[in-house]
Amino acid sequence: MPSHVSARDLGRLLDSLRRKRPLVQCVTNLVSMDVTANVLLALGASPAMVHAPEESGEFIGLADALVCNIGTLSQAWLDSLETAAAAAAAKGRPWALDPVGVGATQVRNAAVERLLVHRPTAIRGNASEIIAMARNAGLTEQVASFKGVDGFDSGDDALTLSRRLAQRHRCVVAATGAVDIVTDGSRVAKLSNGSPLMARVTALGCALSAVVAAFLAVTDDSFEAVVAAVAVYGVAGDMAAAGALRPGSFRVAFIDALDAIGAQDLMRAKID
Amino acid sequence: MPSHVSARDLGRLLDSLRRKRPLVQCVTNLVSMDVTANVLLALGASPAMVHAPEESGEFIGLADALVCNIGTLSQAWLDSLETAAAAAAAKGRPWALDPVGVGATQVRNAAVERLLVHRPTAIRGNASEIIAMARNAGLTEQVASFKGVDGFDSGDDALTLSRRLAQRHRCVVAATGAVDIVTDGSRVAKLSNGSPLMARVTALGCALSAVVAAFLAVTDDSFEAVVAAVAVYGVAGDMAAAGALRPGSFRVAFIDALDAIGAQDLMRAKID
Amino acid sequence: MPSHVSARDLGRLLDSLRRKRPLVQCVTNLVSMDVTANVLLALGASPAMVHAPEESGEFIGLADALVCNIGTLSQAWLDSLETAAAAAAAKGRPWALDPVGVGATQVRNAAVERLLVHRPTAIRGNASEIIAMARNAGLTEQVASFKGVDGFDSGDDALTLSRRLAQRHRCVVAATGAVDIVTDGSRVAKLSNGSPLMARVTALGCALSAVVAAFLAVTDDSFEAVVAAVAVYGVAGDMAAAGALRPGSFRVAFIDALDAIGAQDLMRAKID
Repeated sequence: MPSHVSARDLGRLLDSLRRKRPLVQCVTNLVSMDVTANVLLALGASPAMVHAPEESGEFIGLADALVCNIGTLSQAWLDSLETAAAAAAAKGRPWALDPVGVGATQVRNAAVERLLVHRPTAIRGNASEIIAMARNAGLTEQVASFKGVDGFDSGDDALTLSRRLAQRHRCVVAATGAVDIVTDGSRVAKLSNGSPLMARVTALGCALSAVVAAFLAVTDDSFEAVVAAVAVYGVAGDMAAAGALRPGSFRVAFIDALDAIGAQDLMRAKID
Repeated sequence: MPSHVSARDLGRLLDSLRRKRPLVQCVTNLVSMDVTANVLLALGASPAMVHAPEESGEFIGLADALVCNIGTLSQAWLDSLETAAAAAAAKGRPWALDPVGVGATQVRNAAVERLLVHRPTAIRGNASEIIAMARNAGLTEQVASFKGVDGFDSGDDALTLSRRLAQRHRCVVAATGAVDIVTDGSRVAKLSNGSPLMARVTALGCALSAVVAAFLAVTDDSFEAVVAAVAVYGVAGDMAAAGALRPGSFRVAFIDALDAIGAQDLMRAKID
Repeated sequence: MPSHVSARDLGRLLDSLRRKRPLVQCVTNLVSMDVTANVLLALGASPAMVHAPEESGEFIGLADALVCNIGTLSQAWLDSLETAAAAAAAKGRPWALDPVGVGATQVRNAAVERLLVHRPTAIRGNASEIIAMARNAGLTEQVASFKGVDGFDSGDDALTLSRRLAQRHRCVVAATGAVDIVTDGSRVAKLSNGSPLMARVTALGCALSAVVAAFLAVTDDSFEAVVAAVAVYGVAGDMAAAGALRPGSFRVAFIDALDAIGAQDLMRAKID
């Protein structure tokens, strides 16, 4: 099942992002703010960490896309997330949901349910978060061969559950890890780029969700946008890992790579 | 219109800062906390991120200066900002206002109005923020040649509006960008140091406002203090850009440069 | 008074940590979140910044240890800290207290009193914080030779007060600085590792408290755990300072060193 997104498409989307410099409103967790803002700036987008419910409705009119991330959740933060998501939906702005830690506590499961009401354009999580969302939606029971989290990464269940989740919520789903799956329910891409060091730097997954939002602002094809975000991120990770072997220096090299990456580098993206 | 601040003055003020190690209370936004604290530490000052309204009144007695930054605003945060600014005013501590994003939303305009009541010693923003403050104060209508944001950087309007804002609020105003303007309403300095990479690292403008507060603690001449802060920051940016070409490594090199910078380096500061 | 913790013990504990990869729930201050998470990840532990009172009770069941840090305190944050500490005590999870800035304001003194009710497994602070806690507990009055903060570091009072504090609260106390003292009230270790640059990077002390929590999760001997945390941290500081001379590059090198450090490196730990 080919992804229908070519290296040429990736280069075109990256160029678009750098020309448009989309303003991405981020309601994201406290750990990820610094690295998320720096990732967006390095790539060529503009971050705006705006979370006050009093100004979200007005601010989304200035922004090109939104990311909502439920890490470091609190009751006040959930109000901010909901208000921002509702404003994005009302104004027709694309938005990405990062369901950090969903499945770990009832508070997080309930938070995700409330945010789904506002119809995210894309959902980006790691495998265990996507599986938890599928379980919460009653989708795992329908997959006869489902073996739990341990069997998720390698098997076809990952693909099946991501597709069903995308169909259920009519959005693009990205389950990222050693292999990344992106699907809109019909089209599917599997990407195999990046470095294990990306999991040794805090909040790089959260920052990817913001990059997803940035790409959603430059094309109406959400599937293509999410594939581009995941591909650019992974190839930048490969570039950084070529010169940095430990997590401290890798973080620095990764930010540099997001600035350096160009269409030529994307020719090496591994996408099936 | 010469700035009346010599390279020798800059060196003296930097030495004073490192001897005194001023304790700077920071009520600053969530994105900027890490880099602001590291900038102050590298330069030789002491940061204290203290925002609880319950302790601001007591804490400002220990601190030498305060910075109030309205990024990542919320209602609770605004209460913290106001309480801290009022405490600084009551105890006679200098304080710097960073009006992040003023003009973007009514919430931010209103927040700035409330903070101005407590008479900041200095205001540090980028050109569009200073222009928004001037507009909110009705000062743009008085400038016949005003052409809007695009014409701001290069023209005399930048200077005119910054001066009128400084006169209106009886404080020092710094509008920073490719060219930095510092004025107390009568004296004016134009500085041309620093690197475009400074805008590619999140919150370096916010951290500069904290550095302004640190210098306000070492001299009674607020104009001289703000010129020194802006000059030291820009020259450190030049030093970092000499060895780092991309934003990840630039951030690291910039922190190192703030530690390394000395009176000799300030001889190269471009100030008119 | 030998510490009874050998270099061989340190290596064994570090190996245990990397095998177990303890999940450390962090209710820590806003400045320290990024660096704390990256320090834990680099060392081989798993951070989880979870502070909502609504989910602390459920989440601590998944976590192996907790750190409570009172920096950037607010009323809401104190509620989070108390709920998490109470949950850890109820579920039998070890937890570390970092009393940032205790003694500076009444709010902080009161916050620490409320947290002590839940019986921390270890307290980690700098010398002035430990002395403030001893003063608040009425312990300084009993030390005839006590000379105040200036005389604290070098003298026997540091040791005396740390021991009495440990006895009073039946926990391990670590007073870290140029020389680190660790005591459980009877056993004592003095460690002399690390670099002055560690005090020039924000929140490295806070991150050490999280490392203390991580080691508490891998051995029932809390004294041994805290000695291991402080020793590993100091030796990693030595390793980083061997190649990085300024605070920006030191921070990067320090994170790398926490990833690189092994049993062999711990042979050089200076412990009395």
